[in-house]
Amino acid sequence: MPSPIRREITGFSNPTVKYLRSLRDKKHRKREAVFLAEGLRLLTDARECGHVPQMLVMATGRDPHPLIGALETAVAEAGGEVIVTSPDILSKITGKDNPQSVAGVFSEFDTSLASLDRGASKIWLVAQALRDPGNLGTMLRTGDAVGAGGLILIDDCADPFSVEAVRASMGAVFTQKIARANWDEFLPWLRGGNGQLVAASLRDAVPYRGAPYAAPCFVMVGNESQGLPETYEMACDLRVTMPMRGRADSLNAAVAAAVLAYEVLDGLEGERPLRT
Amino acid sequence: MPSPIRREITGFSNPTVKYLRSLRDKKHRKREAVFLAEGLRLLTDARECGHVPQMLVMATGRDPHPLIGALETAVAEAGGEVIVTSPDILSKITGKDNPQSVAGVFSEFDTSLASLDRGASKIWLVAQALRDPGNLGTMLRTGDAVGAGGLILIDDCADPFSVEAVRASMGAVFTQKIARANWDEFLPWLRGGNGQLVAASLRDAVPYRGAPYAAPCFVMVGNESQGLPETYEMACDLRVTMPMRGRADSLNAAVAAAVLAYEVLDGLEGERPLRT
Repeated sequence: MPSPIRREITGFSNPTVKYLRSLRDKKHRKREAVFLAEGLRLLTDARECGHVPQMLVMATGRDPHPLIGALETAVAEAGGEVIVTSPDILSKITGKDNPQSVAGVFSEFDTSLASLDRGASKIWLVAQALRDPGNLGTMLRTGDAVGAGGLILIDDCADPFSVEAVRASMGAVFTQKIARANWDEFLPWLRGGNGQLVAASLRDAVPYRGAPYAAPCFVMVGNESQGLPETYEMACDLRVTMPMRGRADSLNAAVAAAVLAYEVLDGLEGERPLRT
Repeated sequence: MPSPIRREITGFSNPTVKYLRSLRDKKHRKREAVFLAEGLRLLTDARECGHVPQMLVMATGRDPHPLIGALETAVAEAGGEVIVTSPDILSKITGKDNPQSVAGVFSEFDTSLASLDRGASKIWLVAQALRDPGNLGTMLRTGDAVGAGGLILIDDCADPFSVEAVRASMGAVFTQKIARANWDEFLPWLRGGNGQLVAASLRDAVPYRGAPYAAPCFVMVGNESQGLPETYEMACDLRVTMPMRGRADSLNAAVAAAVLAYEVLDGLEGERPLRT
């Protein structure tokens, strides 16, 4: 087993620090095809899912932890680099006041539709033009919880590899497949195989509760302010509506996706106890 | 009808601009007992719910809109002040790059438990030590959607009157009652009347689906990282569990509240169509 070689960085102006900080910017992430994730639990989840960072950044002055040791070993075995730096510099890298003890630089995944195996899961989440990275991360987290296969990003969405999205995903960025496509690519791909496309809608919709969901079920939500374009809604196999008892006519996008996805999960699992 | 008197502000250093900007800070909001809300739709919702701002701030250089006229009239009738300023200054006030055309300063509401009429709604949402203002705002929005009476904030929560929470509530801050209390105040208040306290939990919990919910049902979620303290969970009348099919053992707090609240809504409304 190769012994981890640590490189220590003490200066804010170090080129590696500049490189790491630049990864908070989408343009730089895209150019380098990497992204930044932080936190011992998240990096451990990643490792257990087979994702080892190219570069591991650890803060000095913390107690040793066996999980950090395991990460270091994995990175060294994979030929990656281990950086040790001050908590202040780590904080500057992640942009968080109370930084986690570790961060890692990961290679971006293949986000082509072709990389998805639609038969692998009963549920897939689809986000159209979602602009809030927190919402995307939350959808990834929900997808993990309902056993979805992944999240498909349609049209111009926020970056799922942004620090905010990765943070909100609570590690689900490593367990969920992520694909990106325009609507004109997505629809033919969907129709090239099995798949029921479902959206929350007010147009000739049936109650979401107990609707005839079928696997693989693609649960789609639209942009935070505009919702889904009408043509997209009309291309759905099933339009469902959720009760709206108040003044508002819509839910937060990530909330709508979750309420719907849990209903789909229940519907697809068939039997459920009768209410007494 | 009094004719609205507009005061024009052109300088960033104007004391009123400083006052308005200071309201983005919790300390100042608390001292003044006011909060800031922005957007024509939101302010119109507020007006229709009987909440008229003390001060209305409008950006110059936009087309006239009948709803803005209605707001101006309402503010003038209530003896409030109407400020006209540049889009740049409004942007500086709200801290948003693409500012809305209007913002308003509202008096804080009574947030005592005593102000709640628990019989007024079948569902109430309860947040314990929730730190993310976006989550609080999203819970308010969900509460509006499920017809909840309001949101009760237990222990040290984020400020529901912060710009972020108000924005995420999409106007529900004006339709939902908001109360703040410590656990030691909340529990005796709850037990002083009807009310079923429900939390998502892993401890001796029953499936959330079809659980015996009873009105008024208080749906409680805990802090984003810690969850609910065990003693709080054990004080609940009903502990329910949601399927977790992936690696994660929890949902985003606002998502968990929503999935649970929609299930409670269905349960309390009784009849539902049999699945075919």
